[in-house]
Amino acid sequence: MVNSRAVVQTAPRSLEMRELPLPEIGPEDALLRVEACGICGSDYEQYAGALPAKYPVIPGHEPVGRIAQIGDRAAERWGVQKGDRVCVEALAPCGNCPQCAGGSTHLCSGRGGIASYGFLSLDDPPGLWGGYAEYLYLPPAVTVHRVDEAIDPAIATLFNPIGAGFRWAVAMPRLQPGETIVILGPGQRGLGSVLAAKEAGAGQIIITGLERDAAKLALAREFGADLTLTVDQDDIRRAVREATSGRGPDVVIDVTSYATSAVTLAIDLARRGGRVVLAGTKGLGNPVPDFFSDRIVIKELTVLGALGVDHANYERAIRLIESRKYPLERMHTHTMPLDQAERALRLLAGEEPGEDAIHIALVP
Amino acid sequence: MVNSRAVVQTAPRSLEMRELPLPEIGPEDALLRVEACGICGSDYEQYAGALPAKYPVIPGHEPVGRIAQIGDRAAERWGVQKGDRVCVEALAPCGNCPQCAGGSTHLCSGRGGIASYGFLSLDDPPGLWGGYAEYLYLPPAVTVHRVDEAIDPAIATLFNPIGAGFRWAVAMPRLQPGETIVILGPGQRGLGSVLAAKEAGAGQIIITGLERDAAKLALAREFGADLTLTVDQDDIRRAVREATSGRGPDVVIDVTSYATSAVTLAIDLARRGGRVVLAGTKGLGNPVPDFFSDRIVIKELTVLGALGVDHANYERAIRLIESRKYPLERMHTHTMPLDQAERALRLLAGEEPGEDAIHIALVP
Amino acid sequence: MVNSRAVVQTAPRSLEMRELPLPEIGPEDALLRVEACGICGSDYEQYAGALPAKYPVIPGHEPVGRIAQIGDRAAERWGVQKGDRVCVEALAPCGNCPQCAGGSTHLCSGRGGIASYGFLSLDDPPGLWGGYAEYLYLPPAVTVHRVDEAIDPAIATLFNPIGAGFRWAVAMPRLQPGETIVILGPGQRGLGSVLAAKEAGAGQIIITGLERDAAKLALAREFGADLTLTVDQDDIRRAVREATSGRGPDVVIDVTSYATSAVTLAIDLARRGGRVVLAGTKGLGNPVPDFFSDRIVIKELTVLGALGVDHANYERAIRLIESRKYPLERMHTHTMPLDQAERALRLLAGEEPGEDAIHIALVP
Amino acid sequence: MVNSRAVVQTAPRSLEMRELPLPEIGPEDALLRVEACGICGSDYEQYAGALPAKYPVIPGHEPVGRIAQIGDRAAERWGVQKGDRVCVEALAPCGNCPQCAGGSTHLCSGRGGIASYGFLSLDDPPGLWGGYAEYLYLPPAVTVHRVDEAIDPAIATLFNPIGAGFRWAVAMPRLQPGETIVILGPGQRGLGSVLAAKEAGAGQIIITGLERDAAKLALAREFGADLTLTVDQDDIRRAVREATSGRGPDVVIDVTSYATSAVTLAIDLARRGGRVVLAGTKGLGNPVPDFFSDRIVIKELTVLGALGVDHANYERAIRLIESRKYPLERMHTHTMPLDQAERALRLLAGEEPGEDAIHIALVP
Repeated sequence: MVNSRAVVQTAPRSLEMRELPLPEIGPEDALLRVEACGICGSDYEQYAGALPAKYPVIPGHEPVGRIAQIGDRAAERWGVQKGDRVCVEALAPCGNCPQCAGGSTHLCSGRGGIASYGFLSLDDPPGLWGGYAEYLYLPPAVTVHRVDEAIDPAIATLFNPIGAGFRWAVAMPRLQPGETIVILGPGQRGLGSVLAAKEAGAGQIIITGLERDAAKLALAREFGADLTLTVDQDDIRRAVREATSGRGPDVVIDVTSYATSAVTLAIDLARRGGRVVLAGTKGLGNPVPDFFSDRIVIKELTVLGALGVDHANYERAIRLIESRKYPLERMHTHTMPLDQAERALRLLAGEEPGEDAIHIALVP
Repeated sequence: MVNSRAVVQTAPRSLEMRELPLPEIGPEDALLRVEACGICGSDYEQYAGALPAKYPVIPGHEPVGRIAQIGDRAAERWGVQKGDRVCVEALAPCGNCPQCAGGSTHLCSGRGGIASYGFLSLDDPPGLWGGYAEYLYLPPAVTVHRVDEAIDPAIATLFNPIGAGFRWAVAMPRLQPGETIVILGPGQRGLGSVLAAKEAGAGQIIITGLERDAAKLALAREFGADLTLTVDQDDIRRAVREATSGRGPDVVIDVTSYATSAVTLAIDLARRGGRVVLAGTKGLGNPVPDFFSDRIVIKELTVLGALGVDHANYERAIRLIESRKYPLERMHTHTMPLDQAERALRLLAGEEPGEDAIHIALVP
Repeated sequence: MVNSRAVVQTAPRSLEMRELPLPEIGPEDALLRVEACGICGSDYEQYAGALPAKYPVIPGHEPVGRIAQIGDRAAERWGVQKGDRVCVEALAPCGNCPQCAGGSTHLCSGRGGIASYGFLSLDDPPGLWGGYAEYLYLPPAVTVHRVDEAIDPAIATLFNPIGAGFRWAVAMPRLQPGETIVILGPGQRGLGSVLAAKEAGAGQIIITGLERDAAKLALAREFGADLTLTVDQDDIRRAVREATSGRGPDVVIDVTSYATSAVTLAIDLARRGGRVVLAGTKGLGNPVPDFFSDRIVIKELTVLGALGVDHANYERAIRLIESRKYPLERMHTHTMPLDQAERALRLLAGEEPGEDAIHIALVP
Repeated sequence: MVNSRAVVQTAPRSLEMRELPLPEIGPEDALLRVEACGICGSDYEQYAGALPAKYPVIPGHEPVGRIAQIGDRAAERWGVQKGDRVCVEALAPCGNCPQCAGGSTHLCSGRGGIASYGFLSLDDPPGLWGGYAEYLYLPPAVTVHRVDEAIDPAIATLFNPIGAGFRWAVAMPRLQPGETIVILGPGQRGLGSVLAAKEAGAGQIIITGLERDAAKLALAREFGADLTLTVDQDDIRRAVREATSGRGPDVVIDVTSYATSAVTLAIDLARRGGRVVLAGTKGLGNPVPDFFSDRIVIKELTVLGALGVDHANYERAIRLIESRKYPLERMHTHTMPLDQAERALRLLAGEEPGEDAIHIALVP
């Protein structure tokens, strides 16, 4: 163990395999032997150049692996030791900015200390800042979560979309038992939202998708969704109104990408006094057409922007994965080797004709 | 006392004075001798026909007066007696719809029982449902608030805009001592927001207006605003950024009418993790141009629609009025007789050249 | 239908059957034909004279029945009509006191308007204020909840203890999915708490009881409790510490009656930063021995007193009953006729040797 | 600058002056030249041996000073540079325990990484862990707050009791404008609570003390208290009832030490649905006599244990100090040199006859 193989991105749509030296580990940090790294939509945006990165960079911010080396103090503080399998949070916050100090480490403004896996340059020592690699550097500020040894590491990387589901669909809108939630978009985060809402005792779970999402919607039903709607076929507004006896859902969450119409739909659907969670990004240059702010005023809606995930909700996701209550292997559709990173990214984005993917993990 | 003079609206921009009979009062209801009725922007919208009403209707939903007659049970339940001066809430909620039962009576969906002063028809017995009159009917579900006898009733009608300030600028966004708030719009509700934010210990209060709002902005400074900005002259985004050392305000509230650009401005100004309150309506057919929902997501903003006022915040407003801490007579610019209702409405809307008004009350 | 049979309490431990006239129903009120009335611990306290009442009184505050007669306005406001089966809330709040106006109608201080079923005197017109009767008066301020026609009315009366479980064990302490809750006491409210915690996705449910509560603890396991402990046999503190890996539960709720030691136990068990709900009364003359307030300070506990139930949580309970997910007939052990009210009360209190009861309903 | 003079405690009531070597500073840490260190009640408890400490130890956890040396990375992350005057938080949290990860760093359970100033042993490198010294070590996890250069550092140490006032009296019980608060105990934290409640717009501030607290109560009035009561003379329960028109205060906070009766008093005073904050410790072996838990249940009180202070409320305190709105020099009664530490501690505890102190700071 002296080197780590790693996928390095040098420009938009340009990946190459490199051998990189392993860093020295001191008392306060550690090294992870990566067992799997999940891929999400933002990985593809980074690959395609839509998300900025400082090249050269090792992508990958959803890593699971075993502690390969760890300093004494880090072992004590993190409560783990060499050999333990852990899920690694995507962000190592600075701990000192007003957001961090106020408990919102996921909004860290990064005053000089943030490490965001998958986005730091190879030139930022010690370089191993991405999950598409054999080894990953763990700085003092990172947070790791122990995970059951018996769980397939590729499945364990689902702690990311399911953690998002718990924070965005349950914790942020304070979803109560018996309430109705509408989830716009059946991707990883949409399915994670179904799982989280089900666990939280939602009374009715409605999820929407496109015609080509039939397999995802079927899986949503298996996870506990009560009603699935197809945007291109159904009159969503009418169907939701009928399903809620005219009252409208308590919570609506938008986890679609690039669909600006989902924002107005979410606001139109929510009941008087309801909560709307906006978690899907539309591309910074894309305004929402026909946005009537009066509908927020007149219904006294609460509209919540959702970006990151926090400690408690990552923990909830890991406990759900360990419970084996749901057929998560149906959600994790592909495990692929590191050297197929490019194909994996294109497959997730639907660029590989004839093959459908929901969640993919790369394994070294 | 057998009749009540009242201003009756029969069509858009059509008011007339009528004599109407007084109703019988039973054990559960009461009659108010109106001493003053405040006028707000929605009064003008109703007058002009932009807000629907069932004609013929007596306008006026901000009444203050003395209990002229009251049933035994009502006196016991409301804790008031004949002769007491009271502020009357605009809405007598049904008490049974899900919103009422959940404590959000201001969102009452009115399943068969709501009385919204100023909007119920004269044909809905007993007809005296508006404050532009000598007498007002008080049904069992109404809420009244005792107010100090020594306060001028016309000043006391300010409990409405100041109550809105307390709920919208302080209670809803949970404004904390030391926080920075930006208030877009220096009308009655904007000035009410300045007063409420000052009382709640805001660290910095910034308010914006148009060039023609110079007098209102000056009054805002007198009420405690730290910085006033003029939309047509200043670069608001830059000025607010500088005033907050680049961080952005904790809370932004939009109380402008018809200015759709204020919505995007509010969202752009708010700091990461901040709160935006939307309280100004834009007209239902007016979409917000250049609305980028990603800014809500990426900053994890909380956007709150604000429409009504509740019991606790009306009480706060009345206590503030009674405290005489602020020169409220500078905010209440005009007291006018009932038969000048039309002129009062046009004056408030800025349709009377050469005369500026902030707050007007009609007195019988 | 001109009279109603009713059980009337005239003194402590003194019940008699009477025939009482039915009242006139106007546009704003209604009459219920009682189908079942649940009995809870406070019924026994009232029977035994420990709770004050104005004799003569018809006991019974957990009624379920059909609308026998209803005024037009009441039908419109309540959204029900003659023949509908409804659950009736125990309290008809005044709607005007500061608590009611602030949305806490369950804390109504009753300024002249409260109707608390089972405790108002027969001399307070129209007298039919209790559920141990064929008919019950429904005043304008009461709240009724529709319930599925196919549910046995005696089972439907469980909306009371289950509603308490939802408010006390879930809503008040904001129980989150995956959290651990310890429930002290396996009576109706304890079992209701197990059901509510299960629905809300609690990660671990621990419930304690006495040796004689074996059947109740077994039912708790059937409802989803993960661990049951017997106070007289187990070292509760050690067992809970072990079950929570030394950390302590997130939430502890005390629903025992008269066991003052449960208060200190609850405070000792809760984790640092945890929440403790106190819902069991100890008798007003019974102080808690060995109460160390420093433990609340040093662990920064939140201790919440819980007394009433609100609209949303009654609704949750009724939806759970209608779902038929749990064997509630095992919790509702006895359905008894009105003329056995006295035996029913003694049976619930454990005064009938050789027979165990959990929940009992009287049917006319 | 090679050594630091420091007061070292070697046993209960045993202090001595030592010269200690300064540590090497790396890229992630810093050294503070102490300008003043505040003394609070727990300093005396530590001195007297009531609070455990690992001897030898440098006491002092309320330091203010200038950055003497700082690593590049620390300067960047903390946003300060050499020469800046800063207030230093008492606790450098581990950042990894469940409390820290959940944003409650003040409840850090210290899994291997916590540094609590004033309580870490001299043997724990680099030893300079206390504020009673010329220099203080600043580890990577510490939080520092910039403070205006023009403020006397001894006055600036008031950020501790005033920060406690903001968190305990305002933030935790969510004190709203216009609400009534009763503060039991006029010591540093009691006066800090008066200041915070005043800033937050409390409608009525009532504070209690003993006869010997006359000077503190007078200062409380100067800071904005509306009513001061003397426990040995007034009937507190009656006086508070009258001052609140029989309703009871919205919030009661106990900041007395060792007075167990203050706990029951707080619970008795609070209104139905009110909040009680317990922040004064009573000594772990001292139970509260006559503690009736039913009063918490029947009034549905929220009782909150309060121990630490957080980032936002320290900031609020520093902004208040910088505002110069209040005569804080009247609260900070004594500035004393390091070698009089023992006399300062005894003076604060009231052990020096004929001299009264409220707040004392040691300056090197």
